[in-house]
Amino acid sequence: MTRLLDRIDHPQDLHGLTEAELQQVAQEVREHIIDTVGEIGGHFGANLGTCEIAVALHSLMDSPRDKILWDVGHQAYPHKILTGRRDELSTIRKYEGLAPFCAIHESPHDIMGAGHASTSIGYGVGLREGARLRAAHAGGGAEEPAPRVVAVIGDGAMTGGVAFEAAHQAGGLGTPLVVLLNDNGMSISPNVGSLSRYFQGVRLKPRLWHGRERVEEALTDLPGVGGIVERVGPTLKGSMKLLNAEGELWESLDWAYVGPVDGHDVHALRQALKQAFAADRPVVVHAKTIKGKGFAPAEEGGLEGMETWHAAKPGSIVARAPAPKVPADPDAPAKPPQYTQVFGRRMIEEVRADRRVVGITAAMNSGTGLNLLQVAEPDHYFDVGIAEQQALLFASGLALEGLKPVAAIYSTFLQRAYDQIVHDVCLQELDVVLAMDRAGLVGDDGPTHHGVFDIAYLRSLPSIVVAAPRDEAELVHLLHTGIAHDGPFALRYPRGEAVGVPLPERARRLEIGKGEVLRRGERVALLGYGSGVGVALEAAALLREAGVEATVADARWAKPLDVELVRALASSHELLVTLEEGVLAGGFGTAVLEAGEEHGIPLATAGGVPGVTQVLRVGMPDRYVTHGAPKLLHQEVGFTGAAVARRVATALGVRGGVPAQA
Amino acid sequence: MTRLLDRIDHPQDLHGLTEAELQQVAQEVREHIIDTVGEIGGHFGANLGTCEIAVALHSLMDSPRDKILWDVGHQAYPHKILTGRRDELSTIRKYEGLAPFCAIHESPHDIMGAGHASTSIGYGVGLREGARLRAAHAGGGAEEPAPRVVAVIGDGAMTGGVAFEAAHQAGGLGTPLVVLLNDNGMSISPNVGSLSRYFQGVRLKPRLWHGRERVEEALTDLPGVGGIVERVGPTLKGSMKLLNAEGELWESLDWAYVGPVDGHDVHALRQALKQAFAADRPVVVHAKTIKGKGFAPAEEGGLEGMETWHAAKPGSIVARAPAPKVPADPDAPAKPPQYTQVFGRRMIEEVRADRRVVGITAAMNSGTGLNLLQVAEPDHYFDVGIAEQQALLFASGLALEGLKPVAAIYSTFLQRAYDQIVHDVCLQELDVVLAMDRAGLVGDDGPTHHGVFDIAYLRSLPSIVVAAPRDEAELVHLLHTGIAHDGPFALRYPRGEAVGVPLPERARRLEIGKGEVLRRGERVALLGYGSGVGVALEAAALLREAGVEATVADARWAKPLDVELVRALASSHELLVTLEEGVLAGGFGTAVLEAGEEHGIPLATAGGVPGVTQVLRVGMPDRYVTHGAPKLLHQEVGFTGAAVARRVATALGVRGGVPAQA
Repeated sequence: MTRLLDRIDHPQDLHGLTEAELQQVAQEVREHIIDTVGEIGGHFGANLGTCEIAVALHSLMDSPRDKILWDVGHQAYPHKILTGRRDELSTIRKYEGLAPFCAIHESPHDIMGAGHASTSIGYGVGLREGARLRAAHAGGGAEEPAPRVVAVIGDGAMTGGVAFEAAHQAGGLGTPLVVLLNDNGMSISPNVGSLSRYFQGVRLKPRLWHGRERVEEALTDLPGVGGIVERVGPTLKGSMKLLNAEGELWESLDWAYVGPVDGHDVHALRQALKQAFAADRPVVVHAKTIKGKGFAPAEEGGLEGMETWHAAKPGSIVARAPAPKVPADPDAPAKPPQYTQVFGRRMIEEVRADRRVVGITAAMNSGTGLNLLQVAEPDHYFDVGIAEQQALLFASGLALEGLKPVAAIYSTFLQRAYDQIVHDVCLQELDVVLAMDRAGLVGDDGPTHHGVFDIAYLRSLPSIVVAAPRDEAELVHLLHTGIAHDGPFALRYPRGEAVGVPLPERARRLEIGKGEVLRRGERVALLGYGSGVGVALEAAALLREAGVEATVADARWAKPLDVELVRALASSHELLVTLEEGVLAGGFGTAVLEAGEEHGIPLATAGGVPGVTQVLRVGMPDRYVTHGAPKLLHQEVGFTGAAVARRVATALGVRGGVPAQA
Repeated sequence: MTRLLDRIDHPQDLHGLTEAELQQVAQEVREHIIDTVGEIGGHFGANLGTCEIAVALHSLMDSPRDKILWDVGHQAYPHKILTGRRDELSTIRKYEGLAPFCAIHESPHDIMGAGHASTSIGYGVGLREGARLRAAHAGGGAEEPAPRVVAVIGDGAMTGGVAFEAAHQAGGLGTPLVVLLNDNGMSISPNVGSLSRYFQGVRLKPRLWHGRERVEEALTDLPGVGGIVERVGPTLKGSMKLLNAEGELWESLDWAYVGPVDGHDVHALRQALKQAFAADRPVVVHAKTIKGKGFAPAEEGGLEGMETWHAAKPGSIVARAPAPKVPADPDAPAKPPQYTQVFGRRMIEEVRADRRVVGITAAMNSGTGLNLLQVAEPDHYFDVGIAEQQALLFASGLALEGLKPVAAIYSTFLQRAYDQIVHDVCLQELDVVLAMDRAGLVGDDGPTHHGVFDIAYLRSLPSIVVAAPRDEAELVHLLHTGIAHDGPFALRYPRGEAVGVPLPERARRLEIGKGEVLRRGERVALLGYGSGVGVALEAAALLREAGVEATVADARWAKPLDVELVRALASSHELLVTLEEGVLAGGFGTAVLEAGEEHGIPLATAGGVPGVTQVLRVGMPDRYVTHGAPKLLHQEVGFTGAAVARRVATALGVRGGVPAQA
C-alpha cells in the first residue's frame, strides 16, 4: 500500500493535492509519528495534535520563503516530516540525529531554533517588519509579494509575558502577522480540572488556568456574578464571561480574531488561513485541537491520558499501553530514585514541618516533582503558568508576607527570571529558595534546555547562597537548609537518577559555606561541585590504579565558597582540580581562582611554578552542546572520571597513564 | 500660614480629615514637591500626578499593615511625604539621603524596593495570597480583616509582559487585589502623538502606542474598519475598538473594572477604591491623571512640556523654566558630550551607511539617544514599550530576515532579557548588537539601576563578543565594528559625560579580541576595561609621582580576551592589575585569571611567588551599592586612580606611598 506521504519530499509537493488528499496526508503523518515515536520514544501527544495544522500551512505557504514559526518545537514533528525529514524521524532526539525542536542549522524550513516557550510571535513581528523594511529599500523593480509569516503557538505558551509583549507590538504596528493558536486546553500538565478540554481558549482564561477546584464552582455559580455587581455598585462591571468572548484578549490588543475552527479539519483550517492572509493585519486563527488525536489510549484517557502520552517511552506506543512498571526483583539492587522525586517528596515534609513553606512551579508540575505536593498539600502549591518572571515576583510577595516560598524551576527556564532574581529577590534580600532541577546537561532535549549557566549567573549576585548537592541525601539536607536560611538561596541538581545513597530519616541544617573532604590523598585534590563530586570520585578510583591517591572534596557551596577548604587543599597538594557541570567562564572553578586572589591564597594558573599549587578547571566548554544521551554528551565534553584522570595524570607527569575505566 | 500637611507625620493622621481637607492636603503635597524638587532637582512630573492618589489611598488604608505597592518608585514622592518623610524630601537621590524609589529598608511603608517597572502586581498577588495562607494557619482566635493590597501602576508599565503574567495569575486565583491604573497616557517619553493625552487607556491600546503617524489615520478611518470585515468574511471580526472598551483587556483576564475616574479628585478616587475593596476579587481602578498636574509650564506645554518636566534640574522649577542653555564661552574648553548623544548621533550615520541597520529601544527613547534616530530615520527606529524581552525577540526576527538590529537598552534593564540573549540571540548566533548604556554605577538612581552585572552575565555565554570603549571615539569604532560583525555583539558604556577626546571623522572596524597598550612602563601593568582605562591612567599618573612608571593597556574586549596581550604583560611585569566597573565575581579580571589557566600563562593569585606575575583585580564589590553622585560612589568602592595607586604601591612595596591626587 503506497502512502501519499511517501511522495512528499518537500512542502511544495503538497501544493497540487486536493483537500481530501491533504486530509489523507495529515492522517498518514499521524500514523508515521505513531509508528516511529512508538519505536523510539519521544514527544508524542502534542505532535499528533498538529498534523492537520502542518499540512494546511504548508499546502498554502511557500516555505521557507514564507515562514512558519513553531512555538516550542515539540509540536513540530509533522512539520519536520513534511519538509524532507520524513525518513530521518527515527533519529530524533538521538545523538547526531534530528533535533527535538526546530533547529536553525538543521533545515532552511526551521526558521528559528526555539526550545523555550512563548517566543514565536516575537520573532514573527521582527521577520515581518524586517521584510517590509527590506522591500522598502529594494525600491522599484518587479514587486514580489511579502513573505507570509505564521506563528503557531499553544494556548499554554500564551501565559508567558513575552508573548503578550509581542502581541502588543504587532497590534500596535498593524504587522500583517498570523498567529495560529493551537488550543488543546493543556500544555504539559493539565492542572485545571477535567473541564478544560471542552472549553476553547482555556489557557487565556486565567480563572480556568489557576482556578483549581474553584473552576467548577465558578461555572456553576455563573448566575451569581450579578450579585457581585449589585453589591459594589453600577460602575463595577462583572467580568466572569467564562464561556464566551474568546477573542476578547486579542481584540483588546488590536488583533483580528478568526475562529474557533476545528484544528483537525484541513479544509476549515485552510479557509481560516486564507482569510487571515487576506486581511493584511495582525490576525489570530483560533484552532481547537486534541492532544493525542488519533491515538485511542490518549484520547480515551481524557486529560490524564493526554498527560501520560505527552512523551512516550520506546515500545509503549506500539503496545498501546504505558511502559509497564517492572516488578521489583528482590535480589536486584534498588534503582536510585530521580532527583525530582526526592525533591517533591521532601517538599511535602518541609510544608508539614513549617506551614510557611510554599512550592511554586511555572507549568512544570510533574517535571519538578511538585505534583506530589499538589496532591498532598494543595494549599501550599501554586502553578503560575509558563511565567517564570511572575513565579519569582509572586515568591517575593509571599516572602514579604513572611512565608517561605520555594520556586522549583529548571535551570534553563530560570534564565527567564534573571532580572527578578537580581532586582526582586537578591537586592531586597528576600527569603526565597530557588530549586533548579535539570542543572547541567539534560540530554535528549539539547542545547535549548541544558542548564549550564546558572552557577555563573547566580554567583555574581550579592546576598545569594549558591549550593549543589552531590547526591540525593545532600539534596534533602540542602533543601532543608535553604528553607531555614533567612535570605536568597539557590540549589541545583541534575536531571535523572540520583546516586543511590540512602535517604536520611531526618533533614539536617548544613553549615553554609562549609565543604567536606571525602577522601584524603596526596599530590592532587579533586574539588567537586554537585555532580562534579561523582566525577571526582570516579577519577580518583582510576588514578589509584595508576598509583596516585587523590584527595576528593565536596565543595557544596559555590557561594559563599569554603575558603578555608581551598586554603587547606592548596597548601597540601601540587594540583587542585575543580569539577562542575556548568560553563567554565565565571563558574565554580573560577570562584576558586577568585578566592585565591581575594584571600591571599597562592594559586598558579599554570604548572611548573615551584611551591605553588596549580589550578585546573574541569567543566562545560564555551560552546553550545548538542542533544543526545547524557553519557555520550559527558564523554564528548570530557566530563567523565576517565577524562579527568587522564588530564590529572598528564599534569602530574604520571608515567603509563591511567586505565580507561576502573 | 500653616499647612494641614505639617500635621501629617503618619498616614493615620489623614484618617480624621474631611474630603475637602484631604483634597487640600493633596494640593499641599504638590506644592511641597514643586518647592523641594525645584530646589534640588529630581523626578518631577510623575509625582505631581499622584498627589491625590497617594492621599486617597492613605486616607482609606492602614499602612503599613495594608500595603501600597508603587510600581517604579519615581511616582512615590507623595507617598514618602505622607509617611513621615516630608521634611527629608530635600535629601532625595543624594548620597545618604532618601532613596529615589521606594526602599524596603528606608520605611515600613515602602513595601518593596523596586526600580524596574511592571512588577507591582506580581508582588501584590504574593502578598495577598500569602496573607490568606497565614490566616488559614493561624486558625481560630479573633478574626482580623485581611490586609488590603493596592498596586499603583502606570499605563506605560502595563506593556511589560510580567505585569500580564501577574494579572493572569490574580485573575485566575481570584486574588482580592486592587490595581490602581495611573493612566497619564505616557511613561517617560510621549511617542504616540498628541492625541494620547486625551484618551485614557492609551498604553493598553497598542495601536496608539506603536502607531506613530498612523494613529491619526486609524482614528479618522474608523468607519473603514467595516471594509476589512467584509473583505475577509463574516468570521473575522473587526477589532479596532479604539475609543471604547477600556476594561476589555482586564475583563478578559477575569478582573473587574472600575472607571475611568478623575485621578485628581480625592472624592472620586475614594469612592472607586471603596467599591474595589468591597468586591473581594481582583479589581482594577482606572484613574486618569495628568503628568505635571498643577505646574503650569508642564501642563501648558502639552506632551512635550510633560517630557521636559519628567525630571527637573535644580533651580529650574523655581524659575518656571527649563535650565537655560549656557551660551558657550569661546575661551572655555568644550564640555565633553554625553556617551548617549554620541551613540544616538552615530546610529544615524550607521543607518545611512547601511540600510539594514535598525535601532530598537524599550521605552527609553531619549535615555538611549535613539530619539535622534527616530527624528532622522523614523523607519529605522522601533520602540517596543517597556518590554525588553520583546526588544530582543523582535531583534532576532529582524536578524533572521537579514537586517542588522541594534538594541539599545540600559545594562540594568537588559537583565530582563537575559534568557532572550542566551536562547534567542547567542544560541542561534544571530546578528544582533546590544548597546548597553548606563553600564557601571549610575549615580542618583541607585542600586536598582546600577549596571554592574553585565560583564559577568554576558561573558559566560558562547558565541557573543563583549566589548567596552574607553572613550567616545572608541564607542564610535566599536558600534561600527559590532554592526559589521556577523554574530551577537555587546558593548557597554557609562552614564554621563564622555572623556572629551575628539570624535573620529570616520568609524573604523577594530580587530576583535585585540587590545592596545597605551603607556609602557615596568613592574606593574594596569589593564583597564571600558571606564577602567581612565582609572588606570589616573592611577599611573599618581604612581609616576611615587617613582613607578606603570604600563597601561586598554583590554577593550572581555570576550574574546586578548590572550596575547595578557601573556605579554604577564611576562614583563611583577603585578598585573585589572580594572572594571562591574562586579568582580565572574567579571573581566576573572577572565584574565581564566585565560591564564586555559592558555598556560603562569599567573599567581597572591604576591611573593618568585618569577610569577601576581594578579590584582579592581572592580565593584560583592554588595549592592547605594545611590548618590557617581564620584562619591566611586570613592566609596575604591574605583579611583588614588585608591588603585595606593593598592599598587602596597603590593609593590613602594615606600612613602602615593599622593592623593596628581
